[in-house]
Amino acid sequence: MHLLNIRRLLFAPRPTTILRRCLSSTIMASWLPIPSGSHFSLANLPFGIISTKADLKPRVAVAIGDHALDLNQLAENNAFSKCASLPASEYAVFADTSLNRFAALGRALHRDVRAYLQQLLKKDTPYPELLQGNDQLRQKAIIPLEDVQTHLPMTIGDYTDFFAGRNHAQNVGVMFRGADNALNPNYNHIPVAYHGRASSVVVSGTPLHRPKGQVLPAPGATTPVFKPCAKLDMELELGMFIARGNKLGHPVPVNEAEDFIFGYVLMNDWSARDIQMWEYVPLGPFNAKNFGTTISPWVVLADALEPFKTAGLSNDVTLQEYLQEERKNNILDIKLDVTLTTAQGNSTTITRTSSQNLLWSWPQMIAHHSVSGCNMRTGDLLGSGTISGTEPGTQGSLLEQSKGGKTPIQLPGGEERSFVNDGDTIIIRGYAGSLEDGAVGFGECRGTILAAV
Amino acid sequence: MHLLNIRRLLFAPRPTTILRRCLSSTIMASWLPIPSGSHFSLANLPFGIISTKADLKPRVAVAIGDHALDLNQLAENNAFSKCASLPASEYAVFADTSLNRFAALGRALHRDVRAYLQQLLKKDTPYPELLQGNDQLRQKAIIPLEDVQTHLPMTIGDYTDFFAGRNHAQNVGVMFRGADNALNPNYNHIPVAYHGRASSVVVSGTPLHRPKGQVLPAPGATTPVFKPCAKLDMELELGMFIARGNKLGHPVPVNEAEDFIFGYVLMNDWSARDIQMWEYVPLGPFNAKNFGTTISPWVVLADALEPFKTAGLSNDVTLQEYLQEERKNNILDIKLDVTLTTAQGNSTTITRTSSQNLLWSWPQMIAHHSVSGCNMRTGDLLGSGTISGTEPGTQGSLLEQSKGGKTPIQLPGGEERSFVNDGDTIIIRGYAGSLEDGAVGFGECRGTILAAV
Repeated sequence: MHLLNIRRLLFAPRPTTILRRCLSSTIMASWLPIPSGSHFSLANLPFGIISTKADLKPRVAVAIGDHALDLNQLAENNAFSKCASLPASEYAVFADTSLNRFAALGRALHRDVRAYLQQLLKKDTPYPELLQGNDQLRQKAIIPLEDVQTHLPMTIGDYTDFFAGRNHAQNVGVMFRGADNALNPNYNHIPVAYHGRASSVVVSGTPLHRPKGQVLPAPGATTPVFKPCAKLDMELELGMFIARGNKLGHPVPVNEAEDFIFGYVLMNDWSARDIQMWEYVPLGPFNAKNFGTTISPWVVLADALEPFKTAGLSNDVTLQEYLQEERKNNILDIKLDVTLTTAQGNSTTITRTSSQNLLWSWPQMIAHHSVSGCNMRTGDLLGSGTISGTEPGTQGSLLEQSKGGKTPIQLPGGEERSFVNDGDTIIIRGYAGSLEDGAVGFGECRGTILAAV
Repeated sequence: MHLLNIRRLLFAPRPTTILRRCLSSTIMASWLPIPSGSHFSLANLPFGIISTKADLKPRVAVAIGDHALDLNQLAENNAFSKCASLPASEYAVFADTSLNRFAALGRALHRDVRAYLQQLLKKDTPYPELLQGNDQLRQKAIIPLEDVQTHLPMTIGDYTDFFAGRNHAQNVGVMFRGADNALNPNYNHIPVAYHGRASSVVVSGTPLHRPKGQVLPAPGATTPVFKPCAKLDMELELGMFIARGNKLGHPVPVNEAEDFIFGYVLMNDWSARDIQMWEYVPLGPFNAKNFGTTISPWVVLADALEPFKTAGLSNDVTLQEYLQEERKNNILDIKLDVTLTTAQGNSTTITRTSSQNLLWSWPQMIAHHSVSGCNMRTGDLLGSGTISGTEPGTQGSLLEQSKGGKTPIQLPGGEERSFVNDGDTIIIRGYAGSLEDGAVGFGECRGTILAAV
């Protein structure tokens, strides 16, 4: 099949599984061994910031199989010389300690650089002299992931968290307001969101202390007490980074919004439910959320996930024009799971779900965020909101799984959980496509809760 | 009076008016003419970022009378040579395009640099050769304010808006929920706040377009329409910039929080009330606020306002220990007013009030913000919430003044306003002390609303 035709099919709205297989097994094989089951196939090449013991300065890399490929080393050793769209004057972006300058170069360039790296890494690369056959560079630039320290991939300007997982909104709404009033009247009209705290977004592997705060000691009490959160929860989300901004006062049209997306990460929006209950009326959650949000380290570029779009949750209201997309079925199709590992070492996968459980696409979220004129900037982080299915074991929060603490989750070894205990580790994993055959995955988003200070 | 004794009295909790007069008329007279009524007396010296037609590069200055004093020029021309606490290696902070690096040097250094500048500028300066007698430097470094372009003073990390103006909370609560439920149960226990949008904070003088958004067409309607905001409001607030941060997971004790404050600005937290009404349940205001927030350009340093503290609103609940201050009467005493100028040129002072109308001190807000472990960073902006008195003409929003639009404000020339019209300019002014005798003021925070795009 001619490459152009393959590309055309690949970027069509819904390529078939057969086509995906065909692509990954033909053009997507690499001379670098990629273990079966890897999230980081040649069809992926997510970008991140790494350092090593040998070189403590953070710099840009992509993940491929069990390795990181150090792009600063490539840039310094002539390996981008055949990448026509990347002038040498821009090579310095790979020496940066964040992906912001690379992201700001725009979606077309991300596409070209990723495609060029695929050319360098694929079997029968047209440029064997640049990397595959360059022993010295290969040894410097290709680093086992186990020897790599990952860092926060972007300098985050503003962080906004949406509420686009309608099953989650419904489940929580039933608990708080009963089945008849579970969803607020605005829910199906507005991609509801709140501004979150950017300073406390941390990269996977960073432990967080259990927050203390004001909580009501019992239902109906009116005087709070101050103590460590007793209802610490996880929230399974996707995160999205903005590539380039819009001017203040000039909204992003929904059908142009795709071009503002840099890429995606997994996100755990930790939540202190007891603190939230007391504080959130009328201005929304504050201390219940601002103690920490964990994201995965590798940013999966928008183009890598382009083949994996599908229909999301159905919505029977007529959308305002600014939310109407020409492209239908624009919801990412990512398999997601959550594992809880206790301090005793018991590991249980407590959630298996999919990002199909979202009501709003990322372009709709961008369009809504900016419709007031609000300006987005390179490095802004948007969260999807908690992603939950409708069946037991598909919910993205413990609040839902334990029905507010009434039905604790049973774990191996006789342990049980209504919420997160000190010493527990929450690991979110996610990927699109087939693990056997060229997955586009995120690796993991891992966070351990330490005792309150 | 010996200088040390004067300082001791000056930094005591409540210096008398007589002492303030004595100070400003004795040690605070300058060889540079300062017009009577100026906000920028020698007792003030607020910091900002300026550029000029002759030198377009933004850099650090202080305001003094009708002039800006270019600190980068001073640094480059030896004028800081007698400032013992500022090593020459730090002079580069004055060439920055924001105050962040200067702020991060810490409160003790801000105090020393400001005191040193007062020495340079005061009558009978001990260092006449450095500035007063240096014709060439004086001509380069002392620039009429009318020739100066001011810029956003800091690179803002996160912006948080509090709700500490209890009269405003009460007034708005009565409108929305009736007098019996005006204040939510948490109000007197928690310095309520929400995370705001940092990207759209603009400096005084920046026009903003009226936002469009989803609103309900009539009370009781359930299907929104999309249109330009019809209830655009101002909010009179103070803003505070953080000097240095705390480590994630390590709250700032309330009695140490003063040391985290860099300085203060005036703030207009523009609000689209009709958009807010439809969107804000359950996660708080979003598009209703994120289209723009205007701040004044000169940051009045925390030490300049130290003599102007007083009692705020009384609170009869027992505060959680983390909010209990050793220092009583820790609320800033700043006279505030708001002028509305219509497109026709009619100017009316619609609000006269005082920042005494706050329930929480800035140290209490910092302590609460970080009590969950949330980390603050240099350049973070905190807003006080809308400041309103209890009498007519003292409220900091049009929503309150017009009783939700029911009783429009009458302006000269037969005009009236329930909310802000296109072409209207809102100007907030504020100062502490006496205008005749060494005021510590902010200048103005000015914003004009343009038609929706």
